Amino acid sequence: MSESLRLGIAGLGTVGTGVVRIVQQRADLLAARAGRAIIVTAVSARDRAKDRGVDLSGFAWEDDATALAARDDVDVVVELVGGDAGPAKDLVEAAIANGKHVVTANKALLAHHGQALAEAAEDAQIALRFEAAVAGGIPCVKALTEGLAGNRVERVMGVMNGTCNYILTRMEDAGLPYDTVFAEAHALGYLEADPTLDVGGIDAGHKLCLLASVAYGTRVDFGGVQLEGIERVSIEDIRHANDMGFKIKLLGVAQMTGRGLEMRMSPCLVPARSPLGQLNGATNMVVLEGDAVGQIVMRGAGAGEGPTASAVMADVIDIARGTRLPTFGQPASTLKKVTRAHSGSPAPYYLRMDLVDKPGALAKIAACLGDAGISIDRMRQYDHEDATAPVIVVTHKAGRPDLDAAISAMEATGVLIGAPVALRIEELGA
Amino acid sequence: MSESLRLGIAGLGTVGTGVVRIVQQRADLLAARAGRAIIVTAVSARDRAKDRGVDLSGFAWEDDATALAARDDVDVVVELVGGDAGPAKDLVEAAIANGKHVVTANKALLAHHGQALAEAAEDAQIALRFEAAVAGGIPCVKALTEGLAGNRVERVMGVMNGTCNYILTRMEDAGLPYDTVFAEAHALGYLEADPTLDVGGIDAGHKLCLLASVAYGTRVDFGGVQLEGIERVSIEDIRHANDMGFKIKLLGVAQMTGRGLEMRMSPCLVPARSPLGQLNGATNMVVLEGDAVGQIVMRGAGAGEGPTASAVMADVIDIARGTRLPTFGQPASTLKKVTRAHSGSPAPYYLRMDLVDKPGALAKIAACLGDAGISIDRMRQYDHEDATAPVIVVTHKAGRPDLDAAISAMEATGVLIGAPVALRIEELGA
Repeated sequence: MSESLRLGIAGLGTVGTGVVRIVQQRADLLAARAGRAIIVTAVSARDRAKDRGVDLSGFAWEDDATALAARDDVDVVVELVGGDAGPAKDLVEAAIANGKHVVTANKALLAHHGQALAEAAEDAQIALRFEAAVAGGIPCVKALTEGLAGNRVERVMGVMNGTCNYILTRMEDAGLPYDTVFAEAHALGYLEADPTLDVGGIDAGHKLCLLASVAYGTRVDFGGVQLEGIERVSIEDIRHANDMGFKIKLLGVAQMTGRGLEMRMSPCLVPARSPLGQLNGATNMVVLEGDAVGQIVMRGAGAGEGPTASAVMADVIDIARGTRLPTFGQPASTLKKVTRAHSGSPAPYYLRMDLVDKPGALAKIAACLGDAGISIDRMRQYDHEDATAPVIVVTHKAGRPDLDAAISAMEATGVLIGAPVALRIEELGA
Repeated sequence: MSESLRLGIAGLGTVGTGVVRIVQQRADLLAARAGRAIIVTAVSARDRAKDRGVDLSGFAWEDDATALAARDDVDVVVELVGGDAGPAKDLVEAAIANGKHVVTANKALLAHHGQALAEAAEDAQIALRFEAAVAGGIPCVKALTEGLAGNRVERVMGVMNGTCNYILTRMEDAGLPYDTVFAEAHALGYLEADPTLDVGGIDAGHKLCLLASVAYGTRVDFGGVQLEGIERVSIEDIRHANDMGFKIKLLGVAQMTGRGLEMRMSPCLVPARSPLGQLNGATNMVVLEGDAVGQIVMRGAGAGEGPTASAVMADVIDIARGTRLPTFGQPASTLKKVTRAHSGSPAPYYLRMDLVDKPGALAKIAACLGDAGISIDRMRQYDHEDATAPVIVVTHKAGRPDLDAAISAMEATGVLIGAPVALRIEELGA
């Protein structure tokens, strides 16, 4: 058996602690699988005194995470600090400069600096890996980069923010409005310090642009993700969707079209009986569609100590086994620059709006859609007691620009109260 | 870019043709991902004249597949001949002896000779890979060997024979008896030449023992799989199961217990609302449970040209990229000999039996269960017009030996008509 692979772990939150636990408790198993021992030699975190429930006494301690990158007894820097700049970026850059392999769970860092870091890693001939950055314990980066490498990828979809799926599921199950469930999730500690990262779709958008890069051989382009959060999804939308056989999910979709790469992270309606529609609570799901394999669905925990540590260890074991792949599956220098498709491909849409309760209001709405070339699949006007009439429209396939034109025209008629909610209905095929 | 990786393909059925098609149509994509070109140099099949819809004119032809192993212009032998002996075995052995890598979709061959072949491959320092042998396009061997390598595996489950799942789903949807649907499947060409391979659970059992080997670091032990086919599952069983919120699936389960390795391939009841319960038609599903990651569910096509060729190409691309892993994830010489757990771990069971319509019959049955230490969760006696009374019993958790003892005792009472059907209810947890 060859020499031990030595880890320096930066960040000892739940995931870092989980990695320490696996390395300590599963030493024999890891050595059998990796063909060599995997050990931790040094760690770094903010608070040295904190009791994390694991024995750190055998490891060197660094107050400054960046110092891990300079240690002779570290082969792999495990970056679990987080954040798209500051200490995490400094650490990863220093590790690469010093010829250390890097395993990271940091989606924000790679979403913003993935191209430069991947190029630097390849120049330094070290591995920079990020399975834990996307969908927690689901080995989806590996499935896409390796398992489906023989496919031209047709679409990548994912529910990849457990907090948003928890909120949407809880609204539905308990019949509670968004604000109430948001406050609950906040109290339970489910939300990031800046909740917009979760409910605004940013965190999930980071993950989507990384998967897209692997899927299509393109440079990471977070700016190209059309982002829309779940803040405007109401309990009424969830109920109306249910009535029509749909669920609402914060769904990421990346697909290459004739107009360029389309990346969307937005609340969408999906069939209630599909695997995506049946995904409840904080669980994640990634759907990969390839021209040869068809549709592959992967489901698992998207966060938490064990699942994320499992993904970190997958990358560590690959490195221990000598597996060397470029960060995004092909050399960073060969990744194509993205042409952005500035609007989503045509799809049916769900529209909810409140109309003034006057004769002809509904006709005006219908006319605006017709004028924009959008035909109506279903329309429902609900009972109402006050002066506003809630109306739901499901369109046939429409382009988003046409839909936006129709909505502008509707707003100009003066019959709308407030802005309409427009949610895409994602067609899932098989 | 380094030298081309040259494939010699044995067997040009749907999968072999699919591999040729991918290599021909996706050359640029494969080269970008693998870092080198992947080409076919030679092929072998039974009928040279047959039109397969692909251009074979650029490839050398061998009438004898084994000759592929001797060709200087072949780096990887792709074995798609099938069968656990004969030409497939000869070819793989010859390839290894000649230092050629082997990619195979042949579950039967590896289930019977996996240990010897893996040892030979490792001695020869070549790769022997089999992603396509298990669950078609689902990259589950890779997920288990690599993606979940940091986990102590707790349970592996799978619905891995699409034909059986098609039959069970069709029985339910159309309300047809087993024999009718079996005949339909036969007419549609869904069944192997020897249908017992499908409906007897043998094909799925081959797959299960391969996954178990990777999961637990044990030698392949097909003989240790407790096999039970779907032949005795009746439309009544499916209906009764539905009434109680279950579906019946031919489910493979491998789990390491204190008594040894338990491998079962048998019709089981699973909750209708679980991912396994919602799996319809010929689709496959693999469920992996690890101590760190929790439960990972993977769903996709288990057979067919594209999906299986996709899995073959994943192994080929790994080889092209220089990834070298032992066949079963750790060196074959370190795989442990299996201690077999001769009966399944305790579980609730579904029992269906026909009783003579006489006073006291039901009491006798209940007494037999009680005497064996088995308590009853639910019991239903159905309306009947003839002299037999159909009875369904769902037990609390029971050991299979106790259940078998109870069934023997019931048979001795003389109140049973025919043999009872006993199906395990697999508890799925999360």
